[in-house]
Formats: sequence, C-alpha cells, structure tokens
Amino acid sequence: MSTSVPQGLPPTPYLRVDPVRLRHKIRRVAERADAAGVALRPHVKTHKCVEVAKLQRAAGADGITVATLGEAETFARHGFDDIFIAYPLWLDEVSARRMRDLLGHARVTIGVDSPEGAAEAGRHLGERVRALVEVDCGHHRSGVQPRAAGTLAVTAARAGLDVRGVFTFPGHSYAAGRTGEAAVDEARALAEAAERLRVAGIEPVVLSGGSTPSLSMSDTGVLTELRPGVYVFGDAQQWELGTMSPDDVALTCRSTVVSHSNGRLVLDAGSKSLGADRAPWATGYGRLLEHPEARIVLLSEHHAVADLAGTPLPPIGSRVDVVPNHVCNAVNLADTLYVEDAGVLTAWPVVARGQNG
Amino acid sequence: MSTSVPQGLPPTPYLRVDPVRLRHKIRRVAERADAAGVALRPHVKTHKCVEVAKLQRAAGADGITVATLGEAETFARHGFDDIFIAYPLWLDEVSARRMRDLLGHARVTIGVDSPEGAAEAGRHLGERVRALVEVDCGHHRSGVQPRAAGTLAVTAARAGLDVRGVFTFPGHSYAAGRTGEAAVDEARALAEAAERLRVAGIEPVVLSGGSTPSLSMSDTGVLTELRPGVYVFGDAQQWELGTMSPDDVALTCRSTVVSHSNGRLVLDAGSKSLGADRAPWATGYGRLLEHPEARIVLLSEHHAVADLAGTPLPPIGSRVDVVPNHVCNAVNLADTLYVEDAGVLTAWPVVARGQNG
Repeated sequence: MSTSVPQGLPPTPYLRVDPVRLRHKIRRVAERADAAGVALRPHVKTHKCVEVAKLQRAAGADGITVATLGEAETFARHGFDDIFIAYPLWLDEVSARRMRDLLGHARVTIGVDSPEGAAEAGRHLGERVRALVEVDCGHHRSGVQPRAAGTLAVTAARAGLDVRGVFTFPGHSYAAGRTGEAAVDEARALAEAAERLRVAGIEPVVLSGGSTPSLSMSDTGVLTELRPGVYVFGDAQQWELGTMSPDDVALTCRSTVVSHSNGRLVLDAGSKSLGADRAPWATGYGRLLEHPEARIVLLSEHHAVADLAGTPLPPIGSRVDVVPNHVCNAVNLADTLYVEDAGVLTAWPVVARGQNG
Repeated sequence: MSTSVPQGLPPTPYLRVDPVRLRHKIRRVAERADAAGVALRPHVKTHKCVEVAKLQRAAGADGITVATLGEAETFARHGFDDIFIAYPLWLDEVSARRMRDLLGHARVTIGVDSPEGAAEAGRHLGERVRALVEVDCGHHRSGVQPRAAGTLAVTAARAGLDVRGVFTFPGHSYAAGRTGEAAVDEARALAEAAERLRVAGIEPVVLSGGSTPSLSMSDTGVLTELRPGVYVFGDAQQWELGTMSPDDVALTCRSTVVSHSNGRLVLDAGSKSLGADRAPWATGYGRLLEHPEARIVLLSEHHAVADLAGTPLPPIGSRVDVVPNHVCNAVNLADTLYVEDAGVLTAWPVVARGQNG
C-alpha cells in the first residue's frame, strides 16, 4: 500500500519515480500493443511494485509476467490472478506445494525447457498448470532450439501439463546495433517452434516474446503476446542503446555530492543502490540525467566517481540524479520507491524485493 | 536475533554460511592483528549482520567500521558503541540530527576529505565527533593527496571537529599482481599525511588502512589500525586474486540446476542474488565451489549460465554452490544468511541490508 511521507525527503541515495513519465510510458506501450492486436503481459520483475502493476492493468495489460514463484505469490496476494512465470522452474516437493496454493488464487502458466523439468512439474501438478515451451532464439541462455519444441511439447503434454504454446526472450537485443536482428530472430524462432507443435498435434495458442529494446520491432504478425519489463522506467542501458531518450527516463537514484576528490564528482550512490551492472558496450556505470557528458568511471559500494569532461562540478552537498545502467537490479536493492507528484511525496513499497526463489 | 529454521531449507537461491570456516577466519585475522600490535576495526558492510559482528568483537575487534550513517545506527541499536563511519559524510540538517542521536549511544568517528564537508560537520556537531582525514593512496576514489592532509586537518579542527588522524583505503589492491604495491602505497601515504598533521600541530593518533587483498602485507610498523571487510567470508574475487583458497570460502549461494540448455549448466542464481559485479580481471560472473574448472559466462537476473569445460553437467534439479564475485554486494541482496552448523539450520538476519543513507 502506498503511503505519504510526512517527514519529508528520505536520506540519499534513494530511488525517485517521475509519475508523469511513468504513466505516459505505460499508456503508450499499451496503446501500441492494442493497435497491433497483441496481448501485453508486462514483466513486473522490473518494478516489483503493486502500484505500478495496477497502472499497467488499468492501461489494459492482459495479466502479468514474473520470474520466480516468490514474485508470483506476492502479486497473487495483491489480487493479480493471471500470472506467467517465464522461467524453466524446477518443482520439488516444497515448491510444488507452494504452486498448488498459488493455483488456488491465480491462473498460472510456467515455462519448460527440458524433459526433466516437464516431467517433474507434470508429476506434481498435472493439467492444473499451463505451460509454454521455452525457445532459444539467439540469446543462448535457456530454452530449446525451435526444431526441438514439438518433441518437448509432447513430453510435457504426456506428463500432464496443459501446453498452450511457446515463448522466447530475445535478450541479444541488448547490444548496440543488434536490436532489429534480435526481433527478426524472435519471430523466426517462435514461428518455427509453433509449427513444430502443430505438426506434433498440439495447437499453439500463445507465441510470446518481447524485450524493451526490440519492442517496437517485434513482429506482431507472428507474436500473440509481448512481455516487456524495463519500458516503465527506462535506464542508462536503454539510453545508450538509443531505444529511449533521457527525457523519457522515469526513475533515477537521487544522490548527494560528497567529494570533489581528484577533480571529479564523487556521489553517495554506489553499487549497493545502483547495482554493479556494466554491459561490455556501456560507456560507464550509469549516467547523470542533467549531465549527459558525464561518465561514471569508478563505482564502489557507496561511491560513484564521475568524470564531467571538464564541465563545472556541482557543489559538494548538492543533489544529482543518477540513471542506473539496469533499472531492474537497482529497484531490487531498494525497499521503497519515492514518487514526487505535484509536490506530494508518496512511498511505494517494493513488495517483491528479494523474492528470488 | 538469530532463529532456528524449523521448516527446513529455504528455496534456492539462498546464501549459506559455513560457520567453522567463518570462525576460523575471524580468529586468524584477529590473532595476526594482535601479534602485530595494531588495532582491528572490521568493516561490517560485508556482512551487515549482528551475529558476525559479535564473533568479531569476541575475537578482540577494537570497534567496528561502517560505510553509512544507517549502518552505524543499526549496529548502535545492537550495542556496538565504538563506530568509525569510513566515509566523507555530508551532514545536512536531517543527518546531523540523526548523528546527534547516534552520539548518545556510541563513540563515533567520521571521515573528512573536503573543507566544505569538514565545515558542515563542525557547524552541526563540533567536538562531539571525532574525525579522520581521508587520504587517497592510489585508488583515486575519494580522499585528499597526502601532502594536503595537514591543511585539511587544521580546517577541520578549526571547524570544531576532534581530529584524531588519517585513514585510507588501498582499493587498487583489487587487481592481479598489484596487491603488494598497494600496501606500499598505503603505508607511504599514511606516513606522509601523518607527518603533515604533526607539522601542522595536530598529533595523529590513528593511522588507519587495510583491505582484504593487501591485509597480510599492510605495514604494521606504520599503521595503527586495520579495517578489512571481505575476509570473514571470502569470495571469487579473493579466489582469483590468489589471496584466499577456495577451501577458505565461508559463504556460497546455494542454487538449483534448472536447465542444460545449449549443453551448459543453467542455475537459478543470477544478478539479483549474486550481484552483477565483474572486475575487468575476473574470469566470469562468479565461480562454482565444487567445479573449479567452470566459468559463469552469462549472468542475468535469475540465470547463471556456466561453461563446465567439457566435464559432466550436474543433473537438472541438483544443487550447486556458487561463490559470488563480490560478497558484500551478494549479502546486501539477501534478507537472511542461512547457517548450517552440525546439522542445525539457523537464520541470521542481514539487519543493515539496504541501509545506504
């Protein structure tokens, strides 16, 4: 539940949400999905926050996506009743018991990418749970090759699962210049995998994909569902990939200048508030919203050292907004998001923070 | 307060502490400091856990080091009454009020590295608070150059602070082959800075340094105090720097094998449980305790993809212990550390988790 913050601003560093930008982005992506005739099932791992998920639902989201059973339980407790756990879950006795409880409150779909995982899920849960076969479209993380999707779907169905289709994550869209290519790979892999299901006698109702960088390029002639996460806030990765303008960034880490050591800007944000993410193509450990020329060249737990390329340093004691490289990991470090709306500060709890299992 | 865990093991991924290794390492470092005649003031940011700090105190630690005011408040509430906040704090009205409350419960020392920071701290707190001048010995993060320490010490003393000496962090010890060099830089910088204080008429009582990689090389003829943090648990960085054997690692992230996609091991640990740290010299995103040949080649929020160099993959559904690259960031993602001692599982709360401000 959101609460107002009567004591004033929290100590820095803290995560600050711009609600106007947030609502605008949620509405825009929902409208695009609607216009393209595909379902939108946002990944709530980015915000882990009921208030944001409610805005997404109000804008027309068709259920939510989560990464873990713990996240699913948290959102089900808050009334979300159509949940896709986009992950090749391993269900042992304990997690199967949790899953049975969850199925009493929500329609749940899980991912499968191995005969072992499918057999174990089927043995524990049978047709009470829906499943999508995970396909690797080029990110090479998890998932089977598209040509193997039919065989795995049959194994899963024989194990008792209600197989509804296929899903993929075009994570290789997170690289400069590869975004369009990843969207092509996504459509091709989902189309081939769906065809393999059909040949095997299982009708694929869901062809699910989507990532924030490739979102505008996903082939909605093939896909039936999109699962973007980061789009609600944006981050320095999206800024540097060119898939989002800094004017669109809706979450920053407000920090204090604590030093000008060695002629550089030293902020009290660090890897314990921003996350330590740095993709090989990133130009630093995060960006400064009001100083596009700046680069965070050194990051430790409570220091972000920025080189301001010769421009004047904001004074010691002043406040600076840092754009984290990867917003999902920054949010997962905070217990609260602070929302400034028309001069009123509201605290949104990150209810699913740390729900990794 | 630690509690036993009657329900059995938590869901993976979770952080697991080996208490025998932990106690051994705490005792060994305390004995070395004692033998060298220097104070040991461990940095509790690594564990953020009262149970571990109590073991350090029982082994002879002379107070504790923290990075933030929030960490200081947390440990003061648990009876720790001699606290060094090794950070160039900016004290505004709100944090100065918190600091005054804290001073009612503990002797507190803060860091200063700018005239502005010293003036603001002095204006709010005066001689109720002790201060050490921070010196940059080569890490180039925060701190003044050693030759400037005398001038800043005088400024801080005139602002009303009780200046007790100098401190540094030889963070450039975190690089293969530079550990010994960093220890030499540390001693040289502290000695020069202390001499500058003396010349300026301020007797330096404390010359504080230390980092886990350089710990055995710190010049205890110069330093009066050591502030290591990571040594209690160890991590993959220490393993790869050669400053700790894997047999000495006391904290792992226990994870489940969820897939064999593309012939690689896919674990349910990811950047939301391990942290995303990867130093330029690291060979991957973490190591596997029982598979020294393995490298985590791809890390996302809930997937760690390991290449096992052709050795057989542990089966899907089995458990694997991951050694995080940087243990401080892994601990700060967890609410609980699970301690297995002679078959009994105990939960230690990470009480200062997320206390960034």
